[in-house]
Amino acid sequence: MKLYEELADEITEAVRRGVFAAGERIASVRRASQQHGVSIKTVLHAYALLESRGIIESRPQSGYFVRDAAARALAPVPAAAGAGRKSAAPPPVPATVDVSRLVLSTLRSIRAHDAVPFGSPYPDPSLFPWRRINQYANAIARRHASWNLIDDLPPGNPELIRQIARRYAENGLPVDPGEIVITLGATEAINLSLQAVAKPGDTVAVESPTYYAMLHAIERLGMRAIEVATHPVDGIDIDALAKVISRQKIAACMVMPNFQNPLGFCMSDERKRQLVELLAAHEIPAIENDVYQELYFGDTRPSTLKTFDTKGLVLHCASFSKSLTASYRIGWALPGRYRAQLEKLKFLNTLTTPSVPQVALADYLRQDGYDRHLRHLRRVYRQQASIMSALVLRFFPVGTRVSSPRGGYVLWVELPLATDSMRLYQAALERGITVGPGMMFSTRNDFRHFIRLNYSYPWTPQAEAALKTLGELATRMT
Amino acid sequence: MKLYEELADEITEAVRRGVFAAGERIASVRRASQQHGVSIKTVLHAYALLESRGIIESRPQSGYFVRDAAARALAPVPAAAGAGRKSAAPPPVPATVDVSRLVLSTLRSIRAHDAVPFGSPYPDPSLFPWRRINQYANAIARRHASWNLIDDLPPGNPELIRQIARRYAENGLPVDPGEIVITLGATEAINLSLQAVAKPGDTVAVESPTYYAMLHAIERLGMRAIEVATHPVDGIDIDALAKVISRQKIAACMVMPNFQNPLGFCMSDERKRQLVELLAAHEIPAIENDVYQELYFGDTRPSTLKTFDTKGLVLHCASFSKSLTASYRIGWALPGRYRAQLEKLKFLNTLTTPSVPQVALADYLRQDGYDRHLRHLRRVYRQQASIMSALVLRFFPVGTRVSSPRGGYVLWVELPLATDSMRLYQAALERGITVGPGMMFSTRNDFRHFIRLNYSYPWTPQAEAALKTLGELATRMT
Repeated sequence: MKLYEELADEITEAVRRGVFAAGERIASVRRASQQHGVSIKTVLHAYALLESRGIIESRPQSGYFVRDAAARALAPVPAAAGAGRKSAAPPPVPATVDVSRLVLSTLRSIRAHDAVPFGSPYPDPSLFPWRRINQYANAIARRHASWNLIDDLPPGNPELIRQIARRYAENGLPVDPGEIVITLGATEAINLSLQAVAKPGDTVAVESPTYYAMLHAIERLGMRAIEVATHPVDGIDIDALAKVISRQKIAACMVMPNFQNPLGFCMSDERKRQLVELLAAHEIPAIENDVYQELYFGDTRPSTLKTFDTKGLVLHCASFSKSLTASYRIGWALPGRYRAQLEKLKFLNTLTTPSVPQVALADYLRQDGYDRHLRHLRRVYRQQASIMSALVLRFFPVGTRVSSPRGGYVLWVELPLATDSMRLYQAALERGITVGPGMMFSTRNDFRHFIRLNYSYPWTPQAEAALKTLGELATRMT
Repeated sequence: MKLYEELADEITEAVRRGVFAAGERIASVRRASQQHGVSIKTVLHAYALLESRGIIESRPQSGYFVRDAAARALAPVPAAAGAGRKSAAPPPVPATVDVSRLVLSTLRSIRAHDAVPFGSPYPDPSLFPWRRINQYANAIARRHASWNLIDDLPPGNPELIRQIARRYAENGLPVDPGEIVITLGATEAINLSLQAVAKPGDTVAVESPTYYAMLHAIERLGMRAIEVATHPVDGIDIDALAKVISRQKIAACMVMPNFQNPLGFCMSDERKRQLVELLAAHEIPAIENDVYQELYFGDTRPSTLKTFDTKGLVLHCASFSKSLTASYRIGWALPGRYRAQLEKLKFLNTLTTPSVPQVALADYLRQDGYDRHLRHLRRVYRQQASIMSALVLRFFPVGTRVSSPRGGYVLWVELPLATDSMRLYQAALERGITVGPGMMFSTRNDFRHFIRLNYSYPWTPQAEAALKTLGELATRMT
């Protein structure tokens, strides 16, 4: 390794450790030359390399500064939050999004390889009460002569809407059934919400890292995503968001306050309230993705942004896909003051949601087996999260950190800085193991040394062996 | 009533009852004069009236014949008859579209009123083989432990794709299974096709009148529709389209060459070829809506634009919703050179199409009951088209004309010019009858004196009474 490379690595590590914070100026070339006892030329070389890596940037007449993105990408993850609770601030430069190609090819590999599905974004369907749901679907098929499409046109089947409203009420989150619009999974709910509040060319604030479906929705509609620093425990950095808002026009803010994918945090009530108030003060709609709402590890269902919304500016999106059945594709939106637009957009986008799945789920929900199923699911996920965390720390290279999910079924893993998770992804795939490469969670090249792991599948000796293999591959790459 | 009118009505009724079959020669003028005991002049008058109604036609040196297949509609063609064969030419000024509000409220009235569904855009579901389809769905539910969402991700369930390709091949329209992308009904296929080839602000050429879902798709994506004169028998006016193309940039052309909704025409092979060639010469993609492909009244399935496409510029969209099951919401696209974009857009829009409906339809199609079902459906629709046409001409005010659908299940009715079909719509609704007001088929105030009627429902005394009421209301408004 050349001298300038050593110097670059040293500075990188310092940034990673929080020695240099985001936006902070680092030593001038002359000063660094003296400090490190190397030539000016070596420092210039090292700084150029750091610039090319995106760790620092030079500003005319000012010197060299640690890039916000770099700091965030290198920021400590929750399990090792000791290194500072400060969330990193990515540079507030809107970026057009093109992540979906990577995601699609990842999903395709998962399908093609019959692989150990650590990389899957979906929960293990075998834990779902498919037998009972199918029974209801079959009963409907026998009961009804045929389906009149018109009955369940948007906003959707009235009984399903009533059951969804009932669940919210039982969880202390009263909603008006008249506000609910049934959609084809939360994917459609989020897409339609975006279209209801923003138009092509508009800028939408998102968490960083963020669930890539959100980036997709933005990409597809020709909007621009601006990534806002997001803390692995506290959630989106409200001060950073305020700054972004003060600097430019933001059409909407998309967030996942409960069990964010991939970080797994659950925003506190206080922070949720602050976020809603900040956005309300600027009349900015909030699109809340709450698909993991039922998968909490605590004692009760957490609040939502909707809980604190007094102006109808929160468009709350959710589905049964993560907790009951993914293949039925039933989601919904509570679009606040955008109710009429959303219903119309649903009609335009897919006309209506299939009837039998709507009615089957309404029947299932009426029979009260859902809570028992969910209690079981939460227990299993909590347990498997804990097993996987422990084994990742055991099998993976020194310096690996893991998130502390408060719900959901994914673990966010930070590998040593030098690890290229795309290479790890490829090497793992050759051994029949999938992982979610970190690059899928940002519009930029951030999170290159992160991976997301799915722990919803039963913890078997095969799974453990696969995780061990993964750890060995990562160690070899470090 | 004049003597010649009585004679004309008598012959009309005979045709309606099947006394005279399509294509059959009726009595010569001299012979009829003798048979009915009226003057030659009266017979000539009566035959002229029948000609103008489209019930008979005179063939030089041969006599008078009951108009064949198309003539079951009992009239030449609305709007065209008076002005000869000239198609009405709407001014080629692009218009932003806002038709969906009217359509949604129409659908809602249909649902709310449990009304006679002449206004419904959907086929009567009771004619569909729901029992058999449900059996397949139930068998799947028993067979599979659970569904892994990933199996049927875009492009869709492989076996369903194979079955769809097989049907095309059997109908002499070979397609590459690798080109097919499964969607949530044709609605999604059309939406995604539009997004694949055009962007907000672009102009899209459509038929006039056109199926309002096409106007919706355009409206929603912030594009502009330019309406091109469309002949009730020949289809879109290719010369008019060529002029539009020469004057301005057209991003795409959306058409329904087979059994267009609402006009019911089927473009000839020659015109289809001309249309494809015109568009190809300008590299303009054609979005072909072929949802009625199986509902032909002739002997064989008509060709498609795809048949004549050599450059991959045709995006062919279809579904099972009009011929097999609407509530399963299974459609597809054959997007030509836009295959990759379309698959990606499908993923972004709704992630995937529900699995069980995909597999159930694949199983159903494999078992070969579809053709028998379709033969029955076509016979019923053809018969009911004929009955409704005859009765519209009997019950509705003088001067009313009806289309001659070559397939599908809707009749396009031109009322006397002074009739306001929105007023008729309202008055009918108060009596529990729905109609499709003509305004829904254009972005402008055209077709104000037109209505669309659905003849897919069983022809009952109640339906006949409702049609009579409708005719009386229309007569009163004239």
